[in-house]
Amino acid sequence: MSDKRSILLVGGGSVGAISALNLDIGHRAAVTIVCRSNFEAVQKHGYSIESCDHGSLRHWKPSGGVMNEVPHAGAGKVFDFVVCVTKNVADAPPSVSDLIKPAVTEGRTVIVLVQNGLNIERPLLAAFSQNVVLSGVSLIGANEPKHGFVQQDFPDTLYVGPFRNPNLDPDDEERAAKEFVGIYSAGGKTQCSYSADVGWTRWRKLVYNACLNPICAITGLDTGRIRLAEGAVEGLVRPAMMEIVAAAKASGYDLPSTVANDMIEMDPLDMYLPPSMLSDVRKGNLIEYENILGEPLREGKKLGVPMPTLNVLYFLCQAIQWKNKELRGLVSGR
Amino acid sequence: MSDKRSILLVGGGSVGAISALNLDIGHRAAVTIVCRSNFEAVQKHGYSIESCDHGSLRHWKPSGGVMNEVPHAGAGKVFDFVVCVTKNVADAPPSVSDLIKPAVTEGRTVIVLVQNGLNIERPLLAAFSQNVVLSGVSLIGANEPKHGFVQQDFPDTLYVGPFRNPNLDPDDEERAAKEFVGIYSAGGKTQCSYSADVGWTRWRKLVYNACLNPICAITGLDTGRIRLAEGAVEGLVRPAMMEIVAAAKASGYDLPSTVANDMIEMDPLDMYLPPSMLSDVRKGNLIEYENILGEPLREGKKLGVPMPTLNVLYFLCQAIQWKNKELRGLVSGR
Repeated sequence: MSDKRSILLVGGGSVGAISALNLDIGHRAAVTIVCRSNFEAVQKHGYSIESCDHGSLRHWKPSGGVMNEVPHAGAGKVFDFVVCVTKNVADAPPSVSDLIKPAVTEGRTVIVLVQNGLNIERPLLAAFSQNVVLSGVSLIGANEPKHGFVQQDFPDTLYVGPFRNPNLDPDDEERAAKEFVGIYSAGGKTQCSYSADVGWTRWRKLVYNACLNPICAITGLDTGRIRLAEGAVEGLVRPAMMEIVAAAKASGYDLPSTVANDMIEMDPLDMYLPPSMLSDVRKGNLIEYENILGEPLREGKKLGVPMPTLNVLYFLCQAIQWKNKELRGLVSGR
Repeated sequence: MSDKRSILLVGGGSVGAISALNLDIGHRAAVTIVCRSNFEAVQKHGYSIESCDHGSLRHWKPSGGVMNEVPHAGAGKVFDFVVCVTKNVADAPPSVSDLIKPAVTEGRTVIVLVQNGLNIERPLLAAFSQNVVLSGVSLIGANEPKHGFVQQDFPDTLYVGPFRNPNLDPDDEERAAKEFVGIYSAGGKTQCSYSADVGWTRWRKLVYNACLNPICAITGLDTGRIRLAEGAVEGLVRPAMMEIVAAAKASGYDLPSTVANDMIEMDPLDMYLPPSMLSDVRKGNLIEYENILGEPLREGKKLGVPMPTLNVLYFLCQAIQWKNKELRGLVSGR
């Protein structure tokens, strides 16, 4: 099948597995997945998936196979797309650019960042100045309670659009984005759409991610409980969200007036699930606070937007990150 | 010894044990201590104490004995002083007033609150309108790693003064305070002094307690690490402290310009000890955030002082408190 696209998907956790599944089942691409902590389990048994979008699957592997490190592209092997679904922890190595570098062919490979936060494209555009870089903003509820076992409770909705690369023709960027949407949608089990206004889409998701995510992580409360806890929504969540709305507006993105309520009420009241950052804190993992909290805070401050709530949340996340870096031996000079 | 004073000390944890020791060893009072979680251990074996002030003691009990509940005062038994060294969790029963009520003789018993925070005298003055109520602000580093085993690493310095009771003669209040200082100091092993300006002393301690204590509790960092963690002092601790200094000033208390630095540098850099609120969070205990953070925040806000850092810390503490109340079955309506 010479017209099949070749896709390398880096990051085989729960969201990565569902993304690989969507990209593979439409038969327009051969997907190879790169796993880290769960490699052995996935290599041996494939994924077991219980999904609101896909039903039950056992022993599923993407058609391009499973690897435990990013392969080198070369004469015999070129990836049309490299899709990053790893955590993006800006303040700890390796950078996303360094991680995917071996697999990227200059001027050819389209890089897709299915990752949260603001300005995440900057280091990629600097490292790969001749490549299209796409934004993927995913709304999904999925977790991996055990290596290789993926549970998806909340449908996958993916918005894809190009990060503007001044060295390239915008038409080529748009074409690449729409081709990716076509591949992702071909299986018919998910919502994936082209969204030209990448900034708007990213700021909108930050209303959830820069606010509820750190507040749940810091307090230890999950999505259901944060809404029940005395004072938490009106004292913390809503003020933080309104700061993001103001910073987005100052940056030129008008979010709908209902966005704070929409985000607060998005998860059902009787769903007690940890947002991703709370899961990471519970596991002692590093957190993505720089991209999802630090960057919008810096953007807003630069534009003169008062952001007192997010400012305190940011420094608390930084301290928690330091604690976990120390535990992992990543703090020098002690 | 009919001239010996009778003292009931409620709260036999580490600070309570050291206080009882100081009150007892000068032989001017017979001290009875009320223990809760550690009663069995202390009743059976007494306290084992390793103290920078007192050296090593084994099997120590106060001369008036150990009890597991607050006794009733009556014809045969009157307490000259009831000293409260319990946690003061304003938002969960029992209140301090309810707790000590059986032992208080109207118009006679002097109540001493060796507890942190602002406005803690209000419910006591309301409940015991004819009794002297004294403020005790203690600077001490002590903990009880095992029931009955007390480790004191940082000297006890206690400031005592009267909370003004409009129904009583100020001279009587001053006399009671000075008598208590005399009893506490008689053993010669500690620093206890009369401090007329209770408000100043309390606001000064809040510079530490309203700021470092919650910040350490929320981030999980101890006293040494909070000073090492990137951004924590300049992004969180110092801004919070300056808000307390501003609120104190608006309330009429001029704290020294060096107070923030003094408090930040008070604990040695190589001492890695959890402040009391962090210990409580680690144990899943309820925290004293209303008295040490909520009250100064409300005072400052009432006077128009901007307190953005403490405001966020307050709501985070409230959410953490809710979480622990839920775990203890103290949240209704679920």
